[in-house]
Amino acid sequence: MIRVAINGFGTIGKRVADAVDAQDDMVVAGVTKTGPSFGCDLAARKGFPLYCTNDDPDRIAAFAEGGYNCKGGLSDLLAAADVVVDCAPGKRGAENLSKYKAAGIKHIFQGGEKHDLTGLSYTSCANHEANIGAEGTRVVSCNTTGLSRTLVPLFEKCKSLKVECTMIRRAADPGDSSKGPINAIKPVLKVPSHHGPDLMTVKPEIEINSLAVAVPTTIMHVHAIIADLPSGHGMTTDSILELWRSTPRVLLMSGSGDRITTTAEVMEMARDIGRKWGDLHEVFVWEDGVSLIGDRLYYFQAIHQESDVIPENIDCIRALLSTESDWKTSVSKTDEAISSYYGM
Amino acid sequence: MIRVAINGFGTIGKRVADAVDAQDDMVVAGVTKTGPSFGCDLAARKGFPLYCTNDDPDRIAAFAEGGYNCKGGLSDLLAAADVVVDCAPGKRGAENLSKYKAAGIKHIFQGGEKHDLTGLSYTSCANHEANIGAEGTRVVSCNTTGLSRTLVPLFEKCKSLKVECTMIRRAADPGDSSKGPINAIKPVLKVPSHHGPDLMTVKPEIEINSLAVAVPTTIMHVHAIIADLPSGHGMTTDSILELWRSTPRVLLMSGSGDRITTTAEVMEMARDIGRKWGDLHEVFVWEDGVSLIGDRLYYFQAIHQESDVIPENIDCIRALLSTESDWKTSVSKTDEAISSYYGM
Amino acid sequence: MIRVAINGFGTIGKRVADAVDAQDDMVVAGVTKTGPSFGCDLAARKGFPLYCTNDDPDRIAAFAEGGYNCKGGLSDLLAAADVVVDCAPGKRGAENLSKYKAAGIKHIFQGGEKHDLTGLSYTSCANHEANIGAEGTRVVSCNTTGLSRTLVPLFEKCKSLKVECTMIRRAADPGDSSKGPINAIKPVLKVPSHHGPDLMTVKPEIEINSLAVAVPTTIMHVHAIIADLPSGHGMTTDSILELWRSTPRVLLMSGSGDRITTTAEVMEMARDIGRKWGDLHEVFVWEDGVSLIGDRLYYFQAIHQESDVIPENIDCIRALLSTESDWKTSVSKTDEAISSYYGM
Amino acid sequence: MIRVAINGFGTIGKRVADAVDAQDDMVVAGVTKTGPSFGCDLAARKGFPLYCTNDDPDRIAAFAEGGYNCKGGLSDLLAAADVVVDCAPGKRGAENLSKYKAAGIKHIFQGGEKHDLTGLSYTSCANHEANIGAEGTRVVSCNTTGLSRTLVPLFEKCKSLKVECTMIRRAADPGDSSKGPINAIKPVLKVPSHHGPDLMTVKPEIEINSLAVAVPTTIMHVHAIIADLPSGHGMTTDSILELWRSTPRVLLMSGSGDRITTTAEVMEMARDIGRKWGDLHEVFVWEDGVSLIGDRLYYFQAIHQESDVIPENIDCIRALLSTESDWKTSVSKTDEAISSYYGM
Repeated sequence: MIRVAINGFGTIGKRVADAVDAQDDMVVAGVTKTGPSFGCDLAARKGFPLYCTNDDPDRIAAFAEGGYNCKGGLSDLLAAADVVVDCAPGKRGAENLSKYKAAGIKHIFQGGEKHDLTGLSYTSCANHEANIGAEGTRVVSCNTTGLSRTLVPLFEKCKSLKVECTMIRRAADPGDSSKGPINAIKPVLKVPSHHGPDLMTVKPEIEINSLAVAVPTTIMHVHAIIADLPSGHGMTTDSILELWRSTPRVLLMSGSGDRITTTAEVMEMARDIGRKWGDLHEVFVWEDGVSLIGDRLYYFQAIHQESDVIPENIDCIRALLSTESDWKTSVSKTDEAISSYYGM
Repeated sequence: MIRVAINGFGTIGKRVADAVDAQDDMVVAGVTKTGPSFGCDLAARKGFPLYCTNDDPDRIAAFAEGGYNCKGGLSDLLAAADVVVDCAPGKRGAENLSKYKAAGIKHIFQGGEKHDLTGLSYTSCANHEANIGAEGTRVVSCNTTGLSRTLVPLFEKCKSLKVECTMIRRAADPGDSSKGPINAIKPVLKVPSHHGPDLMTVKPEIEINSLAVAVPTTIMHVHAIIADLPSGHGMTTDSILELWRSTPRVLLMSGSGDRITTTAEVMEMARDIGRKWGDLHEVFVWEDGVSLIGDRLYYFQAIHQESDVIPENIDCIRALLSTESDWKTSVSKTDEAISSYYGM
Repeated sequence: MIRVAINGFGTIGKRVADAVDAQDDMVVAGVTKTGPSFGCDLAARKGFPLYCTNDDPDRIAAFAEGGYNCKGGLSDLLAAADVVVDCAPGKRGAENLSKYKAAGIKHIFQGGEKHDLTGLSYTSCANHEANIGAEGTRVVSCNTTGLSRTLVPLFEKCKSLKVECTMIRRAADPGDSSKGPINAIKPVLKVPSHHGPDLMTVKPEIEINSLAVAVPTTIMHVHAIIADLPSGHGMTTDSILELWRSTPRVLLMSGSGDRITTTAEVMEMARDIGRKWGDLHEVFVWEDGVSLIGDRLYYFQAIHQESDVIPENIDCIRALLSTESDWKTSVSKTDEAISSYYGM
Repeated sequence: MIRVAINGFGTIGKRVADAVDAQDDMVVAGVTKTGPSFGCDLAARKGFPLYCTNDDPDRIAAFAEGGYNCKGGLSDLLAAADVVVDCAPGKRGAENLSKYKAAGIKHIFQGGEKHDLTGLSYTSCANHEANIGAEGTRVVSCNTTGLSRTLVPLFEKCKSLKVECTMIRRAADPGDSSKGPINAIKPVLKVPSHHGPDLMTVKPEIEINSLAVAVPTTIMHVHAIIADLPSGHGMTTDSILELWRSTPRVLLMSGSGDRITTTAEVMEMARDIGRKWGDLHEVFVWEDGVSLIGDRLYYFQAIHQESDVIPENIDCIRALLSTESDWKTSVSKTDEAISSYYGM
């Protein structure tokens, strides 16, 4: 039984904790909060041991005053776990890494941190094997995870891919009411943007660049993708659809037939099928928006920014702990456990 | 075991079906769709018998072509049920009513229909008793339901209430991507609006008017309420909070302490506590926004437009079938069953 | 010729400068910026002398490096003017007031500052006379200005008014792309809010409270107003409409007849009639949303938050300089000059 | 003096009329409306003769009842003009074309119609010469016009261009309050979209495809453009910026230096510099978002969908009437006349 510490119990941390709890080969050793707040209620409801994000006795004591049972500081949690999933807000990476190293614990960062922090990155379908037994790694961002799901299998078929991706990004998460814009489009003026090339941290053979804009929506990113296949690729639009249909964590549906014409209907479908938080772990591809013209492939995919990396974190735990060497076996195990956990 | 037909399996129908399925004294006799579509998948997943909204053999046959098992037309469903919950889109009321009467089945309409259709309306806390054994009734709208939850108990205490409510309404539901406005406020120029006075169909003793505006959001309505209590009312802000804390389906939380400052955070809280679809059946009241000054009470409440009437439909079924005469007993039963159904 | 200094050349300052420039009895002595930026181009295009918001020689010199001709610091500008209109961002009031007093210059603050700063506030139709010859005052906020336009003439007729106003406010200005929320309604939990009662700083006889919410739009505030007239008021809906039609800076149009159903169409109309920046100096009242029922009057009005106080600042200058004692004469003069300036 | 009829006086028609009125070599012969409405006020304010969109005497008479002076039907207007600019809503093209041909009048359609309608299209910088003396043509859409402004001069330098453009489009215009979505991204599932290839109707030598999404904003489209230059092109990022700086109707500004980071700030700048309706006739290019890497050029541009085609209509009139054979001379004349008309 792998004991998993989750450092940070916010948007990502609360989802990773649930996903760990759903598995039969791992257990939530504890989750951390900075102080007493509504998030502590969630931990208590689920029975997750609660720790403080740091070791200051005064801050630990504050939890009791708020009516919560805090088991100790981060050091105490790290001592009681085999691996820590860092779900702290961005920019804390370097500081936390030194704590994890001092505690001698395996560690997984999220895509908000840079590849250089650990020198190793992870996506289930791209480089599970390369992460086996590693001390620490980084699960790539929601965008990179989504890109790897559709592009890596295509690359395996074609052996060469040159990609341009324009990312139309949500400006704020659904529970975040302070960020804008309300009525504007904001281009990321650093051109090309860092988003696409991040894929090369897990699959260096795919050549990729990207442009990005933020738009006034809270739900999902859309990727408008142009991929150049090598000449003589032998693929067709249909064979690519077939490939993706058989790929884990890729969901193909039709805009016209299934009446899913926007990200709003994608999210509504996720609510309908009973996903917790209305999450969608899969990358969503509009099958009627896929078109291969000569050697150039065009398609749209949508990314649920709050959740698509959650199952990847579970697979990554198994890679670091060397308990499952085959990525597809891990993916099946992860996804079935989550599915039955929520009774979907 | 009460056999419940659900005519219309959209935003409201799919939720009512789930809530019926959660109860131990009733069963989903069937749900209707106009033709094969993604909603049929949902019915199949849940094991709800599927019927066609009308009796045309060609339309019934179309389901099989779409790969769905359709048991028959609406008449067949009505013959196999004790009560029908009408969740059809608005303006079909009169037509459907005649069908229900012809079939001799008890029937419940939703708030999109007018009171005059049945001459009787329903909210659990206002007039459960008056609906016992009735042939047909109407569960009032999401707004009226929310108003009755906070105003009826206050009226019971004070014996007199004069209310003005300004409703700031969502312009579209989350899964609806065609409606606007994107950047505007739209006042309902019929003044006073029909929304508030609808409360008098279930509680005629409360004097109420309303003004309404639609705004560019998909989540929740907010009511800004001004209620004049009779002189000598003996209430305080604290005693009103205490009253609501002990009232079913009213949820009080603090904007500052609980960091729930907007409807976005209210909905996020509902997702966090594991509500299916991220729904919130309760009316949400900001406790730090309640203020009684002399005889005038000010407060804000938020209404989850997609779901707050769902438990009321369950209670209403029991009223019409005369199986539970006490509204509070029904409410407890309904809410506990829903809660344990979703493992919350 | 009144020499007017404008301290701060942003949303309000640039509009006040234009409005001053349009008058034949006053001139722009200068405008201030914190440093070289696009706003300096605007000043240069219009020929307004440019000054630095403070007296630091390094910061003054920085303008030249940016290619702008800066005439000096704030002190230099104050020495060259008869009155200063403070259009600095909020919270600078106390600091700036001491500078103005030290310079012995008359001064006008905006509604972002509190009444207590100067102990005197101003709206053309409410208390022009009380401001004549004053050393300093505050032009009230856009909301208070709009309220005074419709409520003061009504009060003059009725001699008593008790008002409740629910304000549905824009969350950000059109040129502001950082503020949210994108998809939420945010109630102001301080109840009653400070907005309505601010009217009593210019018209203490009107009893008024308010509730406020912010919504995801950038254009206009909407006020949903309930006003209790004294019994025996003798007014009708039509006589109130007639009153407002003859009131300066009140614009009545019909939602149905003129197809102006939302704030978007109100703003489009302002663009169509050629107003600079698409501004609307008048308070907009939907005539088909006005309804007097017994002693209770209901109506909706819309406020262009960026501009409705602009003409009031001009009238206020004349009050402080004692050059026009009759408010209606000043209002006519101001509005005609602005109108012909823009060739409308 | 060229007599210009404007058939349709809505978003585009009202702007074309103003732009014609600004020129010294043409005059507004008349504008049409379907019936009495606020748009008739605008025509009256400007002194534009008003006609009915059809010849039905009853409909013509209706204007008088609404208090407007209607000079006659469309036939009357066509008889009094040398050229008609068709600004009718889309899908009326074929019907109107036959009327124009019957009347023997030169005609200009807008980009809502297809190229096949006239078999000829127009953009000032791409094919002015090819339109000289033509009987009828089509001014291409706002998007195509914007693309031609930056791509045609680049093509003239490089003699070869292969372009991919992802268009992030506004979902509704500012004065349109019925369209959504409020919170979603909507991909155009026809891949590639028709938008980019439309450029080849005016410049067939540029190879171009496009993908498009609609987002919840009312202001401007953003184009994320990837252009492949031929090897040995000899250009640099700086030389491309220099090229565009000297190109008419291209406006380069900096996101960082000028603090114009989103389309909201672009539109605010247009309001600040006094453009009527806050319009921006130029295509806006973020200079710090332009990056040439090897042979691949990346850049972002923003299109004011309501107005960028307006000056092109003026130039096009001169082409059809053969009064100015040099496109640059016409562009200068058009733009200077508009600029001085509005006193900018």
